[in-house]
Formats: sequence, structure tokens, C-alpha cells
Amino acid sequence: MTTINERIEALRAKMKANNIDAFIIPSSDPHQSEYVCDYWKVRVWFSGFTGSAGTLVVTQNEAAMWTDGRYFLQVEDQCADTCVELYKQQIPHAPEHIPWLAEVLNENAVIGIDYRQFSKSQYDYIQCLTSEKNIETKNYPHLLGEIWQDRPELPSDEVKIHPIEFSGESTASKLNKVKAEIKNQKANYYFLSSLDDIAWLFNIRSTDIDFTPLVTAYALVGEEKTYLFSDTSRYNSKTIEIFKQLNVEVLNYDLIAEKLPILSEGKIIVTDAASLNYASFDGIKGEIIFQQSLVQQLKAVKNEVEIENTKKCMLKDGVALTRFYMWLEETLENQELSEYEIGKKLTSYRAEQPLYKDDSFSSIVGYKGNGAIIHYSAPKEGSAMVKKENLLLIDSGGQYENGTTDITRTVWLGGEISDEIKTAYTSVLKGHIELDQMKFPKGTIGIQLDAFARMHLWKQGLNFPHGTGHGIGSYAMVHEPTQGFAGNLATSRGTEAHKPNQFTTIEPGCYKKDTYGIRIENVVVSKELETNSFGTFYGFEAITVFPIDTQLIDKKLLIPSEINWLNNYHKKVYEIISPKLKPSEKDWLKEKCKEI
Amino acid sequence: MTTINERIEALRAKMKANNIDAFIIPSSDPHQSEYVCDYWKVRVWFSGFTGSAGTLVVTQNEAAMWTDGRYFLQVEDQCADTCVELYKQQIPHAPEHIPWLAEVLNENAVIGIDYRQFSKSQYDYIQCLTSEKNIETKNYPHLLGEIWQDRPELPSDEVKIHPIEFSGESTASKLNKVKAEIKNQKANYYFLSSLDDIAWLFNIRSTDIDFTPLVTAYALVGEEKTYLFSDTSRYNSKTIEIFKQLNVEVLNYDLIAEKLPILSEGKIIVTDAASLNYASFDGIKGEIIFQQSLVQQLKAVKNEVEIENTKKCMLKDGVALTRFYMWLEETLENQELSEYEIGKKLTSYRAEQPLYKDDSFSSIVGYKGNGAIIHYSAPKEGSAMVKKENLLLIDSGGQYENGTTDITRTVWLGGEISDEIKTAYTSVLKGHIELDQMKFPKGTIGIQLDAFARMHLWKQGLNFPHGTGHGIGSYAMVHEPTQGFAGNLATSRGTEAHKPNQFTTIEPGCYKKDTYGIRIENVVVSKELETNSFGTFYGFEAITVFPIDTQLIDKKLLIPSEINWLNNYHKKVYEIISPKLKPSEKDWLKEKCKEI
Repeated sequence: MTTINERIEALRAKMKANNIDAFIIPSSDPHQSEYVCDYWKVRVWFSGFTGSAGTLVVTQNEAAMWTDGRYFLQVEDQCADTCVELYKQQIPHAPEHIPWLAEVLNENAVIGIDYRQFSKSQYDYIQCLTSEKNIETKNYPHLLGEIWQDRPELPSDEVKIHPIEFSGESTASKLNKVKAEIKNQKANYYFLSSLDDIAWLFNIRSTDIDFTPLVTAYALVGEEKTYLFSDTSRYNSKTIEIFKQLNVEVLNYDLIAEKLPILSEGKIIVTDAASLNYASFDGIKGEIIFQQSLVQQLKAVKNEVEIENTKKCMLKDGVALTRFYMWLEETLENQELSEYEIGKKLTSYRAEQPLYKDDSFSSIVGYKGNGAIIHYSAPKEGSAMVKKENLLLIDSGGQYENGTTDITRTVWLGGEISDEIKTAYTSVLKGHIELDQMKFPKGTIGIQLDAFARMHLWKQGLNFPHGTGHGIGSYAMVHEPTQGFAGNLATSRGTEAHKPNQFTTIEPGCYKKDTYGIRIENVVVSKELETNSFGTFYGFEAITVFPIDTQLIDKKLLIPSEINWLNNYHKKVYEIISPKLKPSEKDWLKEKCKEI
Repeated sequence: MTTINERIEALRAKMKANNIDAFIIPSSDPHQSEYVCDYWKVRVWFSGFTGSAGTLVVTQNEAAMWTDGRYFLQVEDQCADTCVELYKQQIPHAPEHIPWLAEVLNENAVIGIDYRQFSKSQYDYIQCLTSEKNIETKNYPHLLGEIWQDRPELPSDEVKIHPIEFSGESTASKLNKVKAEIKNQKANYYFLSSLDDIAWLFNIRSTDIDFTPLVTAYALVGEEKTYLFSDTSRYNSKTIEIFKQLNVEVLNYDLIAEKLPILSEGKIIVTDAASLNYASFDGIKGEIIFQQSLVQQLKAVKNEVEIENTKKCMLKDGVALTRFYMWLEETLENQELSEYEIGKKLTSYRAEQPLYKDDSFSSIVGYKGNGAIIHYSAPKEGSAMVKKENLLLIDSGGQYENGTTDITRTVWLGGEISDEIKTAYTSVLKGHIELDQMKFPKGTIGIQLDAFARMHLWKQGLNFPHGTGHGIGSYAMVHEPTQGFAGNLATSRGTEAHKPNQFTTIEPGCYKKDTYGIRIENVVVSKELETNSFGTFYGFEAITVFPIDTQLIDKKLLIPSEINWLNNYHKKVYEIISPKLKPSEKDWLKEKCKEI
């Protein structure tokens, strides 16, 4: 069975046999993960569409791919010559297919889903919109797998303990914090579904998901005994022994369906509604207390060991980027390079660094107008050819065993720079500096801080269509909740107050369609600066160390404090990276770090 | 019956006779007004406490005055020698007395209230907390009045038409907008309780409330016929005739209780939950659609006539303040003046201006440490004596028949200025300028803009404990919804997006207890600046015209664009005000407006 149309027809046959009128296939896994492992790429397999966001809805007459504006062209391209049709979402991530289904389905129809792929609130939304027509939503956890016969296995690589020299806190200590909250809530268990929460809490890492060293698992933390649902074959005997000492029993992943109802019967369970899937909700037979994940809150505040190790990763990134950009400049003197091969070369320079495991996301290498495509991914075949002229935006990062990095630099490769680009670049830089050196009272939330990164762009009639920054993990997710900088209240990045010792990116930009893309991104760590009669004040310290291109700056637009910031930053960059460099590399870096 | 204790005892006797276990007496009127007329000052009459916020709860054993930190001292002072005891609220305006009541009352107890003084959500909150004990909340609209035998009458002054030369839009045109919304909602009526909404919609003004020219009324706007519940004796025959032409029938205020159930029976009514009292909610016999008041939204955007007239009022304020501050400087050369008499003198200078009706609030005249008390009101007896030294903060405003003003200036009266005060003052000024000259995209909300007024204070480890600004009416309320600048999301001032042609105050400050208070406040009008491919951008224009004290500025802390802003502002101030001044006044103003 090879073609998309054959797959859809097979699904329709199964639907008919089971009296299912519509089947919804979303992009998600059972853990509401940002990226999913191959096993959960069901929507990709049934539609051919590989974008990160989209939902396929199949009826006997339609195969509707719902996605947002970022992916219209990609769907039209990848789903051409199939029965899959593009349905345009007005708002990214909005479940606009549900009202559509409620409209097209008849009274008493049946919708099929895999409960594991839907959160409780998503399920409730379907119920709410379809109850008037008495439409039923039923669970078919095996139906898609019966059709997808060569479906990949669930990840099976070894699960490794993330050592205390990198984590900085023992599993016992972390579990005690969760147990204290269980007691505080007068509950019996804390149930966790988020893979990053579980990886942090148990200090475990593996290779389950591209770019992210997480482990496929559920966890039920009890005051006495704790259950980790994760295939036992993935743990060596030493790890099993360590967990036994902590009263943690490892049970196979699939046992969750059988054990959760038994263990939860008559008990009180604390859990986070945002990551809980409907199958787990349905499986919990006790009382549920919903709470924003405590582990998410704990994990967002880094300890001294994590901070020191991440600084070491930033140094490694700085060395790799120095070598990469030197190579790029030299090579462009004699030849053109495709965006795709530039991305591969960058990965190879990072991979030379100690403890490198992977990139932290698929590098964005955007030349000229491609830099304006926020989530651009240069195709293997036919990506743009880069010459020694104009703007090149590169957003990239590494997963090292001792930390995670994320950096964007926009560089001028040659030729005369227009005033328009200088003004935009300098305004982005001013916004970056404004937020970096801001001092703000305890309680200040993301949307307030976000404004400082935009103000200098706004004054020029410019802006950018994304948040200013996100939390970042420690050898974990590159986009980590909860805090960040966003210009709206729709996510925790806008509403969450910053606390000391959090890692957050500062990445304002400016984009003109088909013309240019500019972004300057550092990771900062937050810290307490001062407590006086007016309150407690926090601030940031940049820990990313790599020069910011000064050719693109219109110095007239900078005030003295901004010039000082830039010169001090470059002084720090040189002091930190240069001891690790060869003489020729030092010279190159010195030139890039010279005072303006 | 004269003492507070006798009043409480009389209330307790009535409660006993009616089997009421607790009576709640809030500060509010039936329209959720910010200030209330004398008739509704029931909480003041029963307790002796005159502060703006507080709720008296009377049982057979207790007379509990619940208020927040601003008023602890005042309650202790005004309620000394009475049976009224202070109960400290942790959070201003929070109904912390309800959980307390739910605790102290027995099963099946009865709470008495006047339904008109409670919004639906306040009533629901009582129900929610007391239902477990089967406590009943009953309506006693006459009980307090039976005890308060010399209770003032409801306002009876003539209701005047606010002429089109000042309002800029006819009642017919405004009513048509409401009728369009009724149609849009497929409803029959729009019900209005807010006095400022009603004053705007019907273009009526009177003297019902101190400092605010509103009319006590309810309105039921129908697609065909409209009812204005407001005592007919207050309208002359010409006004009645104008309304008749518009199919508006004026019915006596008290008839609302009888007519609302009849008119609403079987109908669909749109109304705003925030201003609807529980008596009206109870009286509506049809279906209710809750909606943030459309009139509030319409009213917040001013028309050209309102803008031009308000600018004229700003000029009048500027002339009055020039004369006042000249008098102040001259008088202090030879004598000391009390804060109270300074406030009276300022009122007298405003009163000399054409179309002056009243002050727009009770002037705040705070000398030295008194300036740090945000809602300071200098007492008639024993207010601080002002000498020709140190800081004087004056926040004041006028109600003119063609507009409403609100301005704060902080001036140095003599002696050497400390670096601490210069830094604080200059940081307040920088914040004021930053927000005044900000350019921001459509959709930007109050909490984002508020941050710009604080950033320069934050950088110095300073801050201020109030919002940065509020909407302001046009010969209406000095604190007008919906937009503003606030550092939190608890009010619409933080969450509402700014639109062109709104009046908002910019008033950052800095306060050190017992030491100094600094605030610099202008009114600005918002306007569209530019539309380009990055979006539509708005900005502000200051319309308050009076010099900002330059003695207090530490010029080293200003950047060139800030110095330009200040010099341009002073140039504009002089150009606008000076033609209305006598030669000696012109000289004084010229000196105050000279370039720095």
C-alpha cells in the first residue's frame, strides 16, 4: 500500500466497517509534545504533508487538510495528485475543523479519534459543538495502526541517567518537591504526561524525538511509591536499581492503560490539564485536581550547575560559530554555496565540540528574501545559492550533554548596504539591547518586557510578527515553558512573571517579504539586581557569546549607552572565546569584536 | 437620633423585627458610580467613615467596617468612640467581608441588602459562599431609609441639554448607533444603568454628583421607542418636546421597578453586567444578552468637536494655572500658606474662566511628604503649611461646559535640590516623554504602553504604585473607561487596545513615604500616524498646556531627543497660552518655558 489515496481508501473502508462517519488525525502525540517521534507521524503518513501543524479530517467524501497560512503552499505541493484537499485555517492552531465537521455531519453521526492524541479540552470542544446533533465521539486507538502496517516502532534506544554534574539536582531531591506538593494538595498522586517534565524530574535522557533528548513515558508520583511508565527494556540494570532505591518502579509504557485506572481508583490525583490526554483523563478513576504543572515551574528556574554548564555550551557554540563564519567568508570568496550545504557545514562545526549530541532544531539558513520566512527550512535540492553579497540570517542551536543553545546572527556578506536595511538592523539591535539591559520589578510579565524589544522598531514604523523570546531547557527542549516575551496574552510567554535564574532568548527581528530578514538572538539568564524600598528588581545577563555584525549598524541611531553595551559585549565575547582559538581565528574574532 | 451607635442600634432593632441576621451596607449607588450623590451615602451615615471605599456589615454583635490600607487610619479616627470596628481588607475593593460573613453566620441565617446597591456578580458571589449553610439573601430596599429619617432627597436640579456645539453629535445619531446594535444582536432593547453612558447618549447634564455633571437615570433604548427613567419634574417642556421627537419618553426614576418587568416581558435585552444592579437584573423578565457597554466604547472615542473644545479647556486651565502659580510664588515670598487654602485659591482661579462649572475632582495639594500620599486630601483644619522651599505636588482639574481637564505639576519652591530628588524627577519626566512620543501598532494594549512610562524609573531602582493613566470624559467623568495605562491585567486600563481620538492621561510618578511625591501629568489625544506594510501605527499628542518645572531636571540624564521634546513642548505652551495673558504674566510664562 503505497499511495496516499490508497491509504485514505483503506481508512474509509475501516470507517465503514465500524460505522464511523469521520476520522480526525491530528499532528500530536499522547504528551502534547512540540515535536513527535516517527511512530506518531500518522497525519504525515496518511496525507503526505510534512509541515509541523495540520489536522487531517477524513469522511467518505472528503479528505480535508486543515492548516494555517505558513503551510498553504506546502500542502498544495505535497498533496497534489492526491484526494487530500487544503482547508485554510484563519488562525494558527485553532480547531476550525470542528465547527466544519459539526456542520457537514448528519444527526447521530460518529466521529472516530485516538483518545491519546486529544487533550481533555480538545475533546470537550468537540462534544460542545456536536452535542446538538447527538454526534458521538468514540475511541479507536488501534484503527490507524491496522492500516499503517509498516508503522515505525516506538523509540527503543537506551535511557540514560543525566548525571548530577550536569543536572545539579538529584532525582530524590526533585521527587521530594513533588511529594511536598502532593501533601500540600491533600492528594495521593501527581500524574505527569509531559516528556520534558518527566525527563527533568527523573534525570533521564534518550533520543526519542528529533533535536530533543526526551524519553517516551508517563509518570505517576506517589507520596510513597512512584511509577514510571516507560519500556523496561530501555533501562539497564544499574538504572533500574537506582530507581528502586528511590521507590520508583519502571513499568512498560503500554501498561498505562491497564494500571492507571487501578492505581487511581478512590485516590486524589493532581495533574496539568494542558498536557493530559483524554485517554488518561478517562483512565483516572479517582478525583482530579487540575494545576499548572509544578515540574514545569521548578524546571524553568535553573540551578548553579545548570547555569555554569550552559555557559560552557555557549563558549563551545562561540568557537564553532567562529570557525564556521571564517570558513563561510573564505569559501564565498571563490564560490557560491547553497543554503542547505551551509546549514550542514554549521552542524559539522558544532559536532566537533565536546559533548555535542545533536542540533537543538533544524537550522534556519535564510538568504535575502528567504530570511523573511520565519520558519524557513532550506530544501535539500534547489535551495538558494549564497554569494558574497547581501544579508544572510542563520538561526541555529546545539544539544550538548551539558546544555542547550540557540543563537541567531544576521550578517552582511558584501556590497553596498541600503539605508533601509541599516535602519531596520540598527532598530532590531536597539530593541535587543533595551531588553537585555532592562531592570524591572519582581512580578513583571512577558508582555511588558516584550514591548522594550519592539519600541525602537515601532518608532521607525517597523515591527515583527513573532514573540521576542522563549524559555530554553538544559539539555532538554529548546522551546521550554513557562516564561518568555510575547506581545499578546494568548500564551504563558506573555503572562508569566520572570524569576531569577531562568534562561530566555531575546530575539527581536524585522522582515520584509521577498527582500530581507533580520534577527539578533542571544540567550540571557535572569538574576536579582537590587532590593530597596521601591521593591526587588531583576535583570538579565547575556550568556550567548558571539559577535553581532557591526557593518550593518547606523551609528547615528545609537545613544552612548547602547554603544557602550555593544563594545562591552564584544569585549566579553573576545575574552571568553579567544583562549580556545588558534591564532588566525583569534585575529578574525578580534576584528569582529573591535569597538565601534 | 444623632450618634452612630444610636443609628446602629436602630438598624439592629429593625433587623430583629424582620429576622435579618446581618445587613450589608456598601458604598455604591444603583449605577456602580465612582462617586455617589448624598442620597446614597448610607454607609457614611451609618458609620461616620467618609472614605471613598468601605463596606459596613452589621450583625447583632458586630459593626464591621471593611476597608483597605489607604483608609485604616481614617476609620480608626472617624469611628473612634463608636461601636464600629475596623476590619482590614488585604486587597482594595475585594469583598473579603463575604467569606467572613459566611463563617460567622449560622445555618439558615438571613442577610439583608438593598438589591440596587449590588451588581449581579456581587450578588452571585454572596450566594456562592453562603449556599452551603443555606443562608438566604433578601431585598430590603426601604429598611435603611426608614431609620435615616433626614435622608437627603435624590437630586432634583434641572437637567440640561448638552448642546451640539460641545457634544459634536446629536442624540438621534447616537441613538441610531445603539439601535443598530440592538438589530445586530437580534434583540429588542438595550438597557443602560451607567450614568455616564446615559449622559453621553442623551446629551444631558446636571449636578447630581460632586465634580461630575451626570444625571440620575436608567435608560431602556428600543428599536422603536426609548424610555428614560429620570424624574420628569427636572426637564423643562422644551427638553421633553425634543425627546418626544426622538420617540424618547421620560418616566419618573422610581418607575423603573414597576415598568422594567412589564416592558421586558418576553423580550431580548442587551446590557452590561458590570453596571447592572441586582434589582434591575431581577426586574428584567425577558432574555438577557450580556455585552461590554457599546456606549462606553463609543463614548471613549471623541469627535472633532469634542477634541477642539477640550483643547480650549486646556488653554483655560493653562491661563488659570499661570495666574495661580504666579500668585503662589509671590505670596510665599512674604508668608506661609496652608495646603488647604492653596487648593481653594486654585479653584478660584479656574472659576474665573468662561464656562467653568466645577472642579473635576477634589484638588490634591501635597507638600513634601504629603505628596507621597496618592489620594491625599488636605484637611480644612491643620493642613501642612507651605514655605518657599522643597517640593509641592498639585493634581487638579476643571469641569467646563465644553470639556474636562486633569493636570499634575510638581514644582520646587526654593532651597537646594538633592540629587535623589533630581534623579527621581528626571526619571519621571523621561517616562512621561517616552510614552508621550511613543509610536505603536494598532492593537497595542494599556499594559504594554504603561511599561514605557516606568522603564527609566526601573533603571534607577524606582517605581510607582499606581497606573500610568486613565481615559477622561468630555464634560463628564474625569476617570472614564475604557482605555488607559496600567501595569496589570485587572482592569480595562491594562487590557484595552488604544484607538485614535481617545483622551488619556499620562501621569507617572515617584513617591517616598514621608519625604516627597513627584508626578507629571498631561492629557493626550491619540491619533493615527502612519500605515505601511508593517501595519497601522498610532501615537499621542499632548493637549494639556502648562510648563513642566525645569529646575528639578538633571540634564545629564536626558538624551537629545528628550531635550528636544521638552523644548518643543514649552514652545507650544507659550505660543498657545501667551496671547491670553497680560504682559507680566507673559514674562513669567516665558521664563518658565525657556529652553534647557
